[in-house]
Amino acid sequence: MTSDVAVIAGAGAGLSASLARLLAKEGFRVVLAARNVGKLAALVDETGALAVETDVADAASVANLFEAADKTGPLSLAVFNASGRTRGSIADLDPEAVKQALLVGAYGGFLVGQQAARRLLSRGSGSILFTGATASIKGFSGSAGFAMPKFGLRGLAQSMARELAPKNIHVAHFIIDGAIAPNGSGQTGEPDQQDRRLSPDAIADAYLAVHRQHRSAWSSELELRPWVESF
Amino acid sequence: MTSDVAVIAGAGAGLSASLARLLAKEGFRVVLAARNVGKLAALVDETGALAVETDVADAASVANLFEAADKTGPLSLAVFNASGRTRGSIADLDPEAVKQALLVGAYGGFLVGQQAARRLLSRGSGSILFTGATASIKGFSGSAGFAMPKFGLRGLAQSMARELAPKNIHVAHFIIDGAIAPNGSGQTGEPDQQDRRLSPDAIADAYLAVHRQHRSAWSSELELRPWVESF
Amino acid sequence: MTSDVAVIAGAGAGLSASLARLLAKEGFRVVLAARNVGKLAALVDETGALAVETDVADAASVANLFEAADKTGPLSLAVFNASGRTRGSIADLDPEAVKQALLVGAYGGFLVGQQAARRLLSRGSGSILFTGATASIKGFSGSAGFAMPKFGLRGLAQSMARELAPKNIHVAHFIIDGAIAPNGSGQTGEPDQQDRRLSPDAIADAYLAVHRQHRSAWSSELELRPWVESF
Amino acid sequence: MTSDVAVIAGAGAGLSASLARLLAKEGFRVVLAARNVGKLAALVDETGALAVETDVADAASVANLFEAADKTGPLSLAVFNASGRTRGSIADLDPEAVKQALLVGAYGGFLVGQQAARRLLSRGSGSILFTGATASIKGFSGSAGFAMPKFGLRGLAQSMARELAPKNIHVAHFIIDGAIAPNGSGQTGEPDQQDRRLSPDAIADAYLAVHRQHRSAWSSELELRPWVESF
Repeated sequence: MTSDVAVIAGAGAGLSASLARLLAKEGFRVVLAARNVGKLAALVDETGALAVETDVADAASVANLFEAADKTGPLSLAVFNASGRTRGSIADLDPEAVKQALLVGAYGGFLVGQQAARRLLSRGSGSILFTGATASIKGFSGSAGFAMPKFGLRGLAQSMARELAPKNIHVAHFIIDGAIAPNGSGQTGEPDQQDRRLSPDAIADAYLAVHRQHRSAWSSELELRPWVESF
Repeated sequence: MTSDVAVIAGAGAGLSASLARLLAKEGFRVVLAARNVGKLAALVDETGALAVETDVADAASVANLFEAADKTGPLSLAVFNASGRTRGSIADLDPEAVKQALLVGAYGGFLVGQQAARRLLSRGSGSILFTGATASIKGFSGSAGFAMPKFGLRGLAQSMARELAPKNIHVAHFIIDGAIAPNGSGQTGEPDQQDRRLSPDAIADAYLAVHRQHRSAWSSELELRPWVESF
Repeated sequence: MTSDVAVIAGAGAGLSASLARLLAKEGFRVVLAARNVGKLAALVDETGALAVETDVADAASVANLFEAADKTGPLSLAVFNASGRTRGSIADLDPEAVKQALLVGAYGGFLVGQQAARRLLSRGSGSILFTGATASIKGFSGSAGFAMPKFGLRGLAQSMARELAPKNIHVAHFIIDGAIAPNGSGQTGEPDQQDRRLSPDAIADAYLAVHRQHRSAWSSELELRPWVESF
Repeated sequence: MTSDVAVIAGAGAGLSASLARLLAKEGFRVVLAARNVGKLAALVDETGALAVETDVADAASVANLFEAADKTGPLSLAVFNASGRTRGSIADLDPEAVKQALLVGAYGGFLVGQQAARRLLSRGSGSILFTGATASIKGFSGSAGFAMPKFGLRGLAQSMARELAPKNIHVAHFIIDGAIAPNGSGQTGEPDQQDRRLSPDAIADAYLAVHRQHRSAWSSELELRPWVESF
């Protein structure tokens, strides 16, 4: 029997690592896409994942990623976790950095979403999950170079959800509203000081739960924030 | 050992029954509040729940409900599932019916939320979950008598979430965006025609999952809709 | 020739006074509704308005208000400016005060909106404007007793806008996102310290502009905030 | 005395032409930026505007536009009216067309916004207005190639508004929720069939009114739709 394949684009430490571990444990064949796969060596060892060097803002590179994933089995889940960003006052932002943030954070989401959608449409089921941030719904001062790609990615996710849901493909967008802890559980300090940053393991649980939601009760957007976060 | 108590206000068929079954199975002591408890006899038999006749729009009645629940054990979860509504064009709506819809659907949520909050603040943990609808975020033509209480309930939930989250109490609001199937699984018809209405069992699963979310990654609002629902 | 009538419900100092002055200057016959009309004596003198003692949460009282207005001419504009509110932590809020806030702030909006809608539907044109606040779209900690009515009022406005716009009646909701200055212009202090609170005259200008919008380009919601307000 | 300068980027027929006529009439020195200025000859004749051939997605070209505008007087108002779009199902969209839509519709907004912000910050006042669409807040099926740039542009506008408002620069985003009529007034057909599409003259009035709002009561987002539009 062939395992279902899960592609995680924008893999690194943190959420992607927690997701890779959880999905491997649950029987998925995991494919990790990163600009620099050298950094993923330990995670590959641990999870048996396939790592594919990928520039998510390059159409040919993303096509190559999904072709490599095809060789490992049928796609069931794609997670877009890459993020483009640059910070600064509007007068000082570097136009090239803003363009790159848009191409990685929004256009990259489109390229990954399109490749995933084609495969899931053929198969007739599966999920595509996009990782957003507080900046997906609120443009803060100094964050034009992050809000633009994040808002754009949310528009993509909404449009894909409306098109693909009636075709039995679940598209969801996550608003990660807080800082992610560097370690898996996120628990540090005395009990009443714990969990003040998002545990990447807890986020990964939420992603898998959405992938497994009964199709009569799908969520298309989910915000997650630590109990102590102001909002 | 005493079981954790779950109060479900606005109990009837559908979601409340699915919730009662799920929570009883998971070891909760379930307390059902309804205007007419006679209708709950079969559910009480099945789940061992305590049924308390309650008018959610009456402060004394809601206080009595929670005092009755206190005798069964410590509160852990309260679900407000009552709904006030009346339909009609703005010129034709009956003012008394609109007032009643507001008092049941919004003020009732406050009364239940307040009693639950007092107990959970003493205990230092627990969840309060509010059931909303599409009308919680969109006022449709002819639905002023439903949108007013549902918008109001959402404002309550947001305010309570912001106050209580840092005190380790999880408040969440669910937007049920579609019709709920009368039977538990929601599955009827040929496979490609199934799940076109929300399965109350699937909604109940989502409520319990939110109650159990890791506090580093809490959701305060969750929309659930069938795969075929336009939105 | 008979002047168009403008009813302002919830009249007092601040915005209602600025609106009354502006509308009177622009040729409207102004009708002011307040719980205590004694306080309006100076404004009545200045604007020639009719003041009608009104409890906006009482259906008969609101019907009486509009019947009194009918005697002065044909209704063209109704503004609901009353506000119900009570503050406090969720555990401490007084249920009676919360109920009253809901009845004044949301149900009162319905009663005024319904009476106005009936008249404007007969006439085939006109506007109904609702005054909201930051709490109309965000439930803050401690503000459940304000967010509930304000969210509810917004749901009413949305529902009425969707029903009545195709009948040539313009319904709009204003989000006043900041504190209103006590005097008309709002200008106090050194130039760079001026206008830090909303000028009620400026808000009144915005209301009249919305009433006069070309029906090919209607706004149904408008937020107004001072330049220095964080949001 | 030198006239205030208004730059309209993305000039063509429709809204931009109405804006150019209105602003010229009100005494502004108008600068029109378009990819093909040949098409603007009649409008230039009529309004005395300066037309500058501009690729809004090219940093050097946008810098050149504002340098040309500088020679005509001090900037007071910049309107970003360019739009990138491509339509199609997610599986069929052409990646190059999607990239181009993002670069014109979102990155172009950044380039124009940045050049305008630098000048208005020096001057200490002025407005920057962005033109959005229904797709700015709702991603429809088949419109990923429009929703992405439009959502992104809204994120930019929000971020700039929050940064620049306390510096006395007014940034606002318009949601044009409906089709724009080809002629200025938008009025065609029998009276009850008139105004079913947005009059570009009416939209232009709304833009100028926002530019002139009292700074104690600024709007940062305005939706405009025809009375008959469903929403």
